[in-house]
Amino acid sequence: MASSIQYKIRPATEEDVSDILSLVKKLAEYEKLSHEVTATSELFRENGFGKTSHYSCLLADGGMNLDTRYFGFALYFYTFSTFKGKPTLYLEDLFVLPEFRGLGIGKSLLIRLAQIAREKKCGRMEWAVLDWNQPAIDFYRKIDAVPMDDWTVFRLDEKAIRRLAESTR
Amino acid sequence: MASSIQYKIRPATEEDVSDILSLVKKLAEYEKLSHEVTATSELFRENGFGKTSHYSCLLADGGMNLDTRYFGFALYFYTFSTFKGKPTLYLEDLFVLPEFRGLGIGKSLLIRLAQIAREKKCGRMEWAVLDWNQPAIDFYRKIDAVPMDDWTVFRLDEKAIRRLAESTR
Repeated sequence: MASSIQYKIRPATEEDVSDILSLVKKLAEYEKLSHEVTATSELFRENGFGKTSHYSCLLADGGMNLDTRYFGFALYFYTFSTFKGKPTLYLEDLFVLPEFRGLGIGKSLLIRLAQIAREKKCGRMEWAVLDWNQPAIDFYRKIDAVPMDDWTVFRLDEKAIRRLAESTR
Repeated sequence: MASSIQYKIRPATEEDVSDILSLVKKLAEYEKLSHEVTATSELFRENGFGKTSHYSCLLADGGMNLDTRYFGFALYFYTFSTFKGKPTLYLEDLFVLPEFRGLGIGKSLLIRLAQIAREKKCGRMEWAVLDWNQPAIDFYRKIDAVPMDDWTVFRLDEKAIRRLAESTR
């Protein structure tokens, strides 16, 4: 692998939804969570570029002439901190293909996100990391990210949501 | 405390921003995190009811004639699951004033949120819980919420965002 490589980081458009989904599937494979992926390109189109936009995405784009055009991606949206009263840039997925790691692509994506967070006057940037993913944790520590060790996220799936919605007090 | 109580759950409007902030401050006190609160009513107005709306809020409203009008609140927004391809209803804050607990107000707020999540075709509902808050954890377990035990959230504050934004690869 060459130690320097040409690519640009650009915002994804509606034309990119199937490429984004392919990258998400590769990320899921790396996270050993492929069985959880039920998304479709149509859902990515509808929820990113339809009436309401629920996400934005940056692509590390090496150009059309390569066998592998996209080296990595960062998918994000804005949440809100009630303590800060400001939006938080929440990074849902950050992924660089294994064969393109160690070239600074992940760092470039994060720098661009930090610039976007400043433009949007965000009080925080946040993302979740799998506890076994030590290379990622080391990387995040280096940029002074702090683990929220005393919090646990709880989740309801669609079935549990339906049960709750139809329940009575 | 009466075992039944009259209130309605209604969406907050722009007129409610200072009441929402008061409730957030009471929540922060309960969580022993008051020192983290720097939000202002103006920021709540701008980020909830300005050009971009970063949150929505439900209020448990007992009516104007009471000394304490608002018994609790739920502040939420939509994130996005790349694995589901669908929005997630993310519950940032759920809080019932200590003196109004045990009356089903928290459950009522959650039921309403689940109904909203279904209307918006969400694939998930999620929220974070402090690990020492056992009463909350017990409550969430009862409605079949599942803890994401193998994930940790990392956070950058404004200073770290600035440093990252200004760094080079």
